[in-house]
Amino acid sequence: MTIAETFPAADEMALVDRYWRAANYLSVGQIYLLDNPLLREPLKAEHVKPRLLGHWGTTPGLNFIYAHLNRIIRARDSSVLYVCGPGHGGPGMVANTYLEGSYSEIYPDIGQDAAGLKRLFRQFSFPGGIPSHAAPETPGSIHEGGELGYALLHAYGAAFDNPELVVACVVGDGEAETGPLAASWHSNKFLNPGRDGAVLPILHLNGYKIAGPTLLARLEHQELADLFSGYGHEVIFVEGADPMTMHRAMAEAMDHCFDRIAAIRQGWREGGDRARPRWPMIVLRSPKGWTGPVEVDGKRVEGFWRSHQVPIADPRSNPAHLEQLEAWMRSYEPETLFDAAGRLDPALAALAPSGERRIGAVPQGNGGLLRRELILPDIRDFGLEIGAPGTTTGEATSALGRFLKRAIELNADAANFRIFGPDETASNRLGAVFEATDRVWMEPVEPYDVALSADGRVMEVLSEHLCQGWLEGYLLTGRHGLFSCYEAFIHIVDSMFNQHAKWLKVSKELPWRRPISSLNYLLTSHVWRQDHNGFSHQDPGFIDLVANKKADIVRIYLPPDANSLLFVADHCLRTYDRVNVIVAGKQPAPQWLSMDAAIAHCSAGIGLWSWAGTDDVGLEPDVVMACAGDVPTVEALAATDLLRQALPNLRIRFVNVVDLMALQSPDQHPHGLSDEDFDALFTREKPVVFAFHGYPALVHRLTYKRKNHANFHVRGFIEEGTTTTPFDMVVLNELDRFHLAIEAIERVPGLNESAAAVKQGFRDRLGEHKRYIVEHGEDMPAIRNWGWPYQTGAEAGD
Amino acid sequence: MTIAETFPAADEMALVDRYWRAANYLSVGQIYLLDNPLLREPLKAEHVKPRLLGHWGTTPGLNFIYAHLNRIIRARDSSVLYVCGPGHGGPGMVANTYLEGSYSEIYPDIGQDAAGLKRLFRQFSFPGGIPSHAAPETPGSIHEGGELGYALLHAYGAAFDNPELVVACVVGDGEAETGPLAASWHSNKFLNPGRDGAVLPILHLNGYKIAGPTLLARLEHQELADLFSGYGHEVIFVEGADPMTMHRAMAEAMDHCFDRIAAIRQGWREGGDRARPRWPMIVLRSPKGWTGPVEVDGKRVEGFWRSHQVPIADPRSNPAHLEQLEAWMRSYEPETLFDAAGRLDPALAALAPSGERRIGAVPQGNGGLLRRELILPDIRDFGLEIGAPGTTTGEATSALGRFLKRAIELNADAANFRIFGPDETASNRLGAVFEATDRVWMEPVEPYDVALSADGRVMEVLSEHLCQGWLEGYLLTGRHGLFSCYEAFIHIVDSMFNQHAKWLKVSKELPWRRPISSLNYLLTSHVWRQDHNGFSHQDPGFIDLVANKKADIVRIYLPPDANSLLFVADHCLRTYDRVNVIVAGKQPAPQWLSMDAAIAHCSAGIGLWSWAGTDDVGLEPDVVMACAGDVPTVEALAATDLLRQALPNLRIRFVNVVDLMALQSPDQHPHGLSDEDFDALFTREKPVVFAFHGYPALVHRLTYKRKNHANFHVRGFIEEGTTTTPFDMVVLNELDRFHLAIEAIERVPGLNESAAAVKQGFRDRLGEHKRYIVEHGEDMPAIRNWGWPYQTGAEAGD
Repeated sequence: MTIAETFPAADEMALVDRYWRAANYLSVGQIYLLDNPLLREPLKAEHVKPRLLGHWGTTPGLNFIYAHLNRIIRARDSSVLYVCGPGHGGPGMVANTYLEGSYSEIYPDIGQDAAGLKRLFRQFSFPGGIPSHAAPETPGSIHEGGELGYALLHAYGAAFDNPELVVACVVGDGEAETGPLAASWHSNKFLNPGRDGAVLPILHLNGYKIAGPTLLARLEHQELADLFSGYGHEVIFVEGADPMTMHRAMAEAMDHCFDRIAAIRQGWREGGDRARPRWPMIVLRSPKGWTGPVEVDGKRVEGFWRSHQVPIADPRSNPAHLEQLEAWMRSYEPETLFDAAGRLDPALAALAPSGERRIGAVPQGNGGLLRRELILPDIRDFGLEIGAPGTTTGEATSALGRFLKRAIELNADAANFRIFGPDETASNRLGAVFEATDRVWMEPVEPYDVALSADGRVMEVLSEHLCQGWLEGYLLTGRHGLFSCYEAFIHIVDSMFNQHAKWLKVSKELPWRRPISSLNYLLTSHVWRQDHNGFSHQDPGFIDLVANKKADIVRIYLPPDANSLLFVADHCLRTYDRVNVIVAGKQPAPQWLSMDAAIAHCSAGIGLWSWAGTDDVGLEPDVVMACAGDVPTVEALAATDLLRQALPNLRIRFVNVVDLMALQSPDQHPHGLSDEDFDALFTREKPVVFAFHGYPALVHRLTYKRKNHANFHVRGFIEEGTTTTPFDMVVLNELDRFHLAIEAIERVPGLNESAAAVKQGFRDRLGEHKRYIVEHGEDMPAIRNWGWPYQTGAEAGD
Repeated sequence: MTIAETFPAADEMALVDRYWRAANYLSVGQIYLLDNPLLREPLKAEHVKPRLLGHWGTTPGLNFIYAHLNRIIRARDSSVLYVCGPGHGGPGMVANTYLEGSYSEIYPDIGQDAAGLKRLFRQFSFPGGIPSHAAPETPGSIHEGGELGYALLHAYGAAFDNPELVVACVVGDGEAETGPLAASWHSNKFLNPGRDGAVLPILHLNGYKIAGPTLLARLEHQELADLFSGYGHEVIFVEGADPMTMHRAMAEAMDHCFDRIAAIRQGWREGGDRARPRWPMIVLRSPKGWTGPVEVDGKRVEGFWRSHQVPIADPRSNPAHLEQLEAWMRSYEPETLFDAAGRLDPALAALAPSGERRIGAVPQGNGGLLRRELILPDIRDFGLEIGAPGTTTGEATSALGRFLKRAIELNADAANFRIFGPDETASNRLGAVFEATDRVWMEPVEPYDVALSADGRVMEVLSEHLCQGWLEGYLLTGRHGLFSCYEAFIHIVDSMFNQHAKWLKVSKELPWRRPISSLNYLLTSHVWRQDHNGFSHQDPGFIDLVANKKADIVRIYLPPDANSLLFVADHCLRTYDRVNVIVAGKQPAPQWLSMDAAIAHCSAGIGLWSWAGTDDVGLEPDVVMACAGDVPTVEALAATDLLRQALPNLRIRFVNVVDLMALQSPDQHPHGLSDEDFDALFTREKPVVFAFHGYPALVHRLTYKRKNHANFHVRGFIEEGTTTTPFDMVVLNELDRFHLAIEAIERVPGLNESAAAVKQGFRDRLGEHKRYIVEHGEDMPAIRNWGWPYQTGAEAGD
């Protein structure tokens, strides 16, 4: 039985309006009140919070949409996730989940009675209470909406592979000015009506940001209509300020949109449609601060930016303000909405959906509930057979591509794994995945196109923002994914990473939020191999940012070769509630570790490569040659080779770091080596020459508490780059084998004097190399073909 | 005399076509050839570079546009800046500046003869040569186009306050998928035809990215037309593949666009038009890799993504490839374009504009040439009168607002200073500027609007990307600006900052590039005062990113109060070729430094506040209390106050850091204190308790080389936050006065035992505060009203 059969339409709209007023009342109450939640006594100054923190302006619009979503969910028994772009309208989202009962189920101390109401009001934006946004604490939310721009992306990420879901996504007209949001309208070109859910964008033009009008709200109607038509939508306008007129218009618009969504789905799923549909969207133009005070202190507030935060500033000490606040709150007629015990009128309570249909209880809003383990093949089936270390060449990401291809096949039925990347899957040598799937493509496909289809599981678009946002939405709703990206350009989503890490940090503290799959980055085409592109494409600093986040959230891995990359990737894809960053090259490179050795080494995260060093067990080495990252590992090994040839009596220990956080103290990071183990590896006083993939400061920052830190000499990227040869890049940054070997000689007490000739020899050979490069435009064969067992003899004989 | 009068149209187009072929020939030559530049002998393998690095696909389109811009510049004597979004088409930009002569003027070794041609080809993407992109090395470029997304923003930034300039901006269809680019189409709503130049966007739909089709190229015509009409443009389509047909269409389109631009200008400047015009734009649909090989090894290349980089992969070892390369290059008929000496046919050379009209010589392309010093008022006129330290309260950014207001007035005639921010100028308390100017607003203005007009000099849009990109373009063309931003959200433009810093680093190495004004950030509404918004708005990590860049580019300032902020801001606005980051609060806060004291302290960048500490000159203190940032300074002073009250015999030195780079070693940063001065301030072995604005690791990373580093105990943001009171925020992160005082006690040898009761007293009082906050929802008056001279006595008596 639909709601339309239960009530005549006019009555229905009157009820919806009352429900809306209840939500508005609860929203104002949260912003203002400490006590007297039902206004059963006259409002006094002491009922008002001492600090008024919250955002009213957007809230009535959000409540209006919520009420109408409730109506349509009940009418059609639909499953709807509400993504609230203007997340600072948190009071509205909390108010509605309270009204529908999902809030009290999760937070039983906020019961559906007067005492619960009082606590509901008090806790909002209050020390020890809840934040002001649609934060992880808010039931049904997958989107905090603090930093603006990602609402539609999260909505689409949630809709992918959720065929029965409708994601209603409110986009504020402030947020609509951001770059990521502007591009994310094109997400509809990646949504397959056959297998995916629907996204219903609701652009909320309330006209103003914090202190001025919004661009879109002041466009001429035709321009606005053209813009969203150009974005591929059928646009339904709902515009006005009179509540009852607006209720009718919104109900009609919702009915139309859900009809269209149903028709599109049916056309694809039963009718064989294959052209990208024009999905409906709603443009809702309503006053900012709707139903709030029209003016305060003689200044325009409703329908203006002054309603953005707290419209009446000072009710505690200004009696006129107190009076105005009370009048405002009473205008919602709370006594007609709640009974004396504080319970919502049953006629209104009946308007909300029930069980998992409630927006605050939709399982996708707590995606961990739905998460199934990813099925992964045995990495041993994809490992490279290598002989002695350094005798085989391989491409690390190619091997990973073959592993991922199989993973895609194994999880095809579960339809819960996708790969994201800005047009770089093939360029990053993960091309094997295209033997198992395609790129998602809803536009026309030409006969000569390669690996494009509506059913693909690889999502490519030249926007790191879109990749990141879709993946976040996909993970937050219980699925799995991998984002492969050029290393330098992952900085484009620094702030999105920050926000996701913040979300994870908070949601891990909430027992009712179930764990979600980790966000996995594969950073490749990295700083050391940007031969084609040069300086603008050379930046290894993302891991610095990542290292700032809470230790139990973040992991950074620098596998030195293919088998270690397979181990690390397999591990990351099995974890949850983390952000894993893997940095690995895509170019042909020498291979060091058999699969067994890779498993042992990467499980420990850090370790001694005894085959490379010369120190005897039990004896302190003269110098530790350490490295992290694939290219630095090659250079550190080559430096060790040079030193072994030239100074056979020098005791060198060779240490490779895969799990960067192993360097940190265990009190700072759970992966941190104990001081005892750290000292056993790096010694307490011997020089450590450290070849590092990124900025040297990161290693210092991770190790500054260690005993031997003063003897750490780190070389890494020092912001020198251009289009040049691979070896010239490491030389420009003084990370090459010769600089490393020279530094070792200089740091070992006494050696600098006794090995002066050796050092000079290294300098001379470096000079030769530089001249060769500039002359020939490529690296000397001795460098290009260098491999561990050949040692430097090969170079001499070249 | 216009070119149209010189040549009959058909002849003109034939000449333009030949010019285009010359540019294409030079582009291919740069990618492939080491020698035989004029193909005067058969092409041999050894003429080909060993490593082929470059991007052909976009290049013929860029060359086509360049040729037509040349035509229209000559025809109308226009000043045109060319912003090349697909900057990886660098060979094209270099080829054209070479053809027009501007290249050889800057680089005389690349002369206009056969020897010069050989060097031109060889240097491209070659060690010791030039990068593959439209990098700073490229004459006329203000836009490298390495990281995609910012072309239109740079174009608009260049056009602002340049009334006679036309900025032709090529947007690739790959770049058009990015977020920043998608939003930047709305920049036309900020361009005032009366005082600003024009931007002519040319959307280049060549259909493909590196490995797949582009979204926009596969849209239906009507959707595409609607989209750009919705963005507010009149759209002119130029579509096809036949060169001569396309030349005629493009020439017509250019004529139309320049006619429209002239008419719009005239309408505003003479006719009194005041409605935002529909600026023209061109959609150019042409094949990717146009005029290149149709197929290679049987696979589609021209008009497909395989032409993206190097279409013929292996001419050095594959004779068929060599033959195909030679045929391709000869298809341009080089012998008809260049004479035997390698000089361009004079009939073609005559097609290029001359002098500063040449695209490679437009002064705005080397903005430092046009830069005039900013006129700044005396900061003393805007300083706060303060009595003894801590007795006065003031808002730092409000004072700055008054200073900026005057700066706007003083530079109104020069029209070379703008303030940028995402809708936060007023919220960040810089509102005084609105007494001198408005927000730029080209949409309708309502009677109740505040500080909006077409002539404003404050640029507000809710997109950090747009603010940053406009400002970059404005600075790169020789003007001045300030970007004020919420601290947490400046991470949105991390990657843009990276790219700008890279541009500065390289351009500083080029003597012909003149210095441009520094990019100045004011980060406010910072991590410690996000009472309204909570965790998502709390992130002080941008300065970590900044500190990774080349030391001579970046500066970070943390002024502790209003007068010091004035000094720092004034200083930053006078500098050039840097990125300056200023972090300062906007909330009412105690003031410490008189203007004289602020000038002395900030000039040094770091210093001892003897009025706060208790150490006698010449005596080593027991403990150093150090701080950087306004809120940490308050807490460090309050901690010192607590300690002085409780332990009057304890010798405390108080050090405040304004210029963060002073902490670094002088061999790492030019502002670094000498080790001697550092040790004199921080001692060589006494404990240092450091209250820091940002993540503690940054201070460790900056000081790890210092003698006393092992005794640095840094407290800062440890990723704990929510909506709560200001004091609770510092408590959550253990940066509050009590934690600092306790740490001091614990670190001074012997004191931990003898002062156990004092420590317990501090713990108890911290507990009281926490309870008060949760009970009352605000900080205890003793905290809110704390000021230095009252010391802790005030709290006791509260």
